[in-house]
Amino acid sequence: MHKSELEKYFETNEKRILQEYFDLLRFKSISTDPAYHQDCLDCAVWLQRALEQLTFKTELIETPGKPVLLAERSGKPDAPRIVFYGHYDVQPADPLDLWESPPFEPEIRNGRVYARGALDNKGQTFYFLKAVEALVAADALDASLTIILEGEEESGSGGIITIMDTLRSRISGDVLLVCDTDCFRPGLPTIVMGLRGLVKLEVRLDGPKRDLHSGLNGGVCKNPAQELARVIATLHDENGRIAVEGYYEGIREPNAEEQSFLDQLGFSAEEYERENGVPPTGGEHELHPLVRIGFQPTIEVNGMYAGYTGAGAKTIIPSSATVKLTSRLAGKQNPVDCLARLKAHIQKHAPAGMQLHFIDHGVGGPAFSVDLDSPYVSQARTLLRSLFETEPMLLWEGGSIPVVSALAESTAGEALVVGFGLASDNIHAPNESFAISRFKEGFLYVATALQALKRA
Amino acid sequence: MHKSELEKYFETNEKRILQEYFDLLRFKSISTDPAYHQDCLDCAVWLQRALEQLTFKTELIETPGKPVLLAERSGKPDAPRIVFYGHYDVQPADPLDLWESPPFEPEIRNGRVYARGALDNKGQTFYFLKAVEALVAADALDASLTIILEGEEESGSGGIITIMDTLRSRISGDVLLVCDTDCFRPGLPTIVMGLRGLVKLEVRLDGPKRDLHSGLNGGVCKNPAQELARVIATLHDENGRIAVEGYYEGIREPNAEEQSFLDQLGFSAEEYERENGVPPTGGEHELHPLVRIGFQPTIEVNGMYAGYTGAGAKTIIPSSATVKLTSRLAGKQNPVDCLARLKAHIQKHAPAGMQLHFIDHGVGGPAFSVDLDSPYVSQARTLLRSLFETEPMLLWEGGSIPVVSALAESTAGEALVVGFGLASDNIHAPNESFAISRFKEGFLYVATALQALKRA
Repeated sequence: MHKSELEKYFETNEKRILQEYFDLLRFKSISTDPAYHQDCLDCAVWLQRALEQLTFKTELIETPGKPVLLAERSGKPDAPRIVFYGHYDVQPADPLDLWESPPFEPEIRNGRVYARGALDNKGQTFYFLKAVEALVAADALDASLTIILEGEEESGSGGIITIMDTLRSRISGDVLLVCDTDCFRPGLPTIVMGLRGLVKLEVRLDGPKRDLHSGLNGGVCKNPAQELARVIATLHDENGRIAVEGYYEGIREPNAEEQSFLDQLGFSAEEYERENGVPPTGGEHELHPLVRIGFQPTIEVNGMYAGYTGAGAKTIIPSSATVKLTSRLAGKQNPVDCLARLKAHIQKHAPAGMQLHFIDHGVGGPAFSVDLDSPYVSQARTLLRSLFETEPMLLWEGGSIPVVSALAESTAGEALVVGFGLASDNIHAPNESFAISRFKEGFLYVATALQALKRA
Repeated sequence: MHKSELEKYFETNEKRILQEYFDLLRFKSISTDPAYHQDCLDCAVWLQRALEQLTFKTELIETPGKPVLLAERSGKPDAPRIVFYGHYDVQPADPLDLWESPPFEPEIRNGRVYARGALDNKGQTFYFLKAVEALVAADALDASLTIILEGEEESGSGGIITIMDTLRSRISGDVLLVCDTDCFRPGLPTIVMGLRGLVKLEVRLDGPKRDLHSGLNGGVCKNPAQELARVIATLHDENGRIAVEGYYEGIREPNAEEQSFLDQLGFSAEEYERENGVPPTGGEHELHPLVRIGFQPTIEVNGMYAGYTGAGAKTIIPSSATVKLTSRLAGKQNPVDCLARLKAHIQKHAPAGMQLHFIDHGVGGPAFSVDLDSPYVSQARTLLRSLFETEPMLLWEGGSIPVVSALAESTAGEALVVGFGLASDNIHAPNESFAISRFKEGFLYVATALQALKRA
């Protein structure tokens, strides 16, 4: 199917496609919160039915967490064997009061679909499925296709990691396709050459048995909130560099060719500030922002709380303080080592006389990168250039898709990570959205790639 | 009335006294939370009626906040003119799930009354009123009495501070009585010779326009939670000493006589740890704990929050972070100067590119202390020794009663600050309680003092 035929298919079926897309978005498949476990299961079954209708052989593989949906369809003997990875779970929707429409009641405003998961990753997964549908309907899908949809990407991918060895023994492909990333700018198709790894850690510091009167005890009782703040402050040095011992083991700088691609992207500090309300001054000051995002690790506070958080004031020394941390990994950093180093650092800086508690949320996975001389990257650049009439960008991204690295072992490390989100789509935040025009771009890219890719 | 007559009065009337005490405790007079404004007003009116029944002339004086109840009763010409100060507001009751019985439904367990305010300050105010009642009933109250009950002690005393000049013009007395403090140990009556001052400040640091994806932005966007933690960590040096410039102006060490009284108290680190679950290792390490509490300032985090605080993990850079601070003042520290210095310090250490917001909760007031050679302290020591058959202690306390310093100007600085709480009564915390036996001790002390004190 040529571009014009694909466009016609999309237009003819757009109303139905959006209806189905909305059905998928209505599932409250928040994997991190046990309250939504059934919603996750229902969502997985819905996708299983959808793939069966596309003549796939499907299986819901049980895991200790959410099931992994595996779907397979054989193609022609010489056609490439393509593996697709996506996820059906979403981030929590709070703070709810900042949503202009309810997060699980999708709504179109100004050509955008607003809902939790509209982009990440239900939207991008769904244009993939609709591209497959178009090709199947036209009997134009020659490639063999293995589709893997997991349900815990937003909470550490614990389930799929547990079954990874079994899963990999069943999969063998030429290239892994992932549609869970952004275009660097609107209208600029972007091949993601690297993704960061992820480690999560919650830390609770317990002080006095109960909240204490801050007058009667202030000056003799150490304050857990202050002590935790002090510990958090030790995680970075004054230059924004991580101060955890040995944390940079495995980190490398971009080589000259990678640097030249980074330069082509033309990062604009003004644009960043306009979009986000703050200048891009985090991290290590002397490094280029795109190097900081693509080639450097981070340790971020995602949440913290202690003591009285209501209206007015309350004169207490809180009995405990909690921080939720995540660390993005780059290069060849080992997630298990990094988590151990982070814990050791916190332990070392924690105050005497208080109890430190670590709550693990799973080791997410190492960073992932694609070789610059990959034949599939070369093919993708050609087809994207032709399809969108512009030179595609190569980007080393800061986000994480924990299992991409492990899954790509089934394709000898070959992967094409191309997505059609934008930073302004508010993923992981209130009012997440995805423009229907970009949903359609994704549909065109996938349908074209599934036909055009050749075995290397 | 002698001790035995007072005891008999208490026993005869105990059931009614407790019923009325419970009625007082049921008012949800949480002054810091606007949701409870009407409860505060209702509580003030209830106390006004109670004082009218004791033949006091009463007036509810309006303020910008909660009304101040002023009640006066003339005595014999040569009898001392005594001013009493108390407060009818209470601290917030959360965390509610840690209460064993509802905070505003008083309950007796093991001889203790459990309720928010059971001690602080409704309990101690109420035994004062019941002592007055006993003397009035026996026609044994010769002293002139002025009672001042305010409704914002737990939230900065803003209302009474606003009307302080007018109030003082109407009051003239020989000595100020305050019952809002603890015994240093059970059975050890304690005269509080000093109280710390108080300054409150809430700080919000605003970063990006919205919560950002911590992968796509980690390494370029500064994290408000981490930056606020860093700012909090700058408030103290590595020895636990406040690092705010000029903050110790007006601080003095205890003199030899004061030090000898502190030594008599016999502070026990083991006892402190047993009671509170943590060793008394806060504050400046090289100073004696009772000096740190009575003669040194503090800056405490009472609460802080940022980002995601629900179950599991959420990979965001929070858009803002908030901390609620209070500072206890000692010696001659000026509250207005201290607040300005604290703000200047935070401003200086705040990150560029973020917005810093200060939310004032009112300047509480300076520290207060009584001279060691006060004739009323001498009289109180005598009457307490006789009444309880033990040597009373002299203590410089860490808590604050913001307006005591200003009110004592009406009594030429003479004040007797004696109360019957204990650190284990959990004021400002879940399961606040007051033993009925100590309620009775307070009743005996007040009734005795009102009869025994002589004009100096």
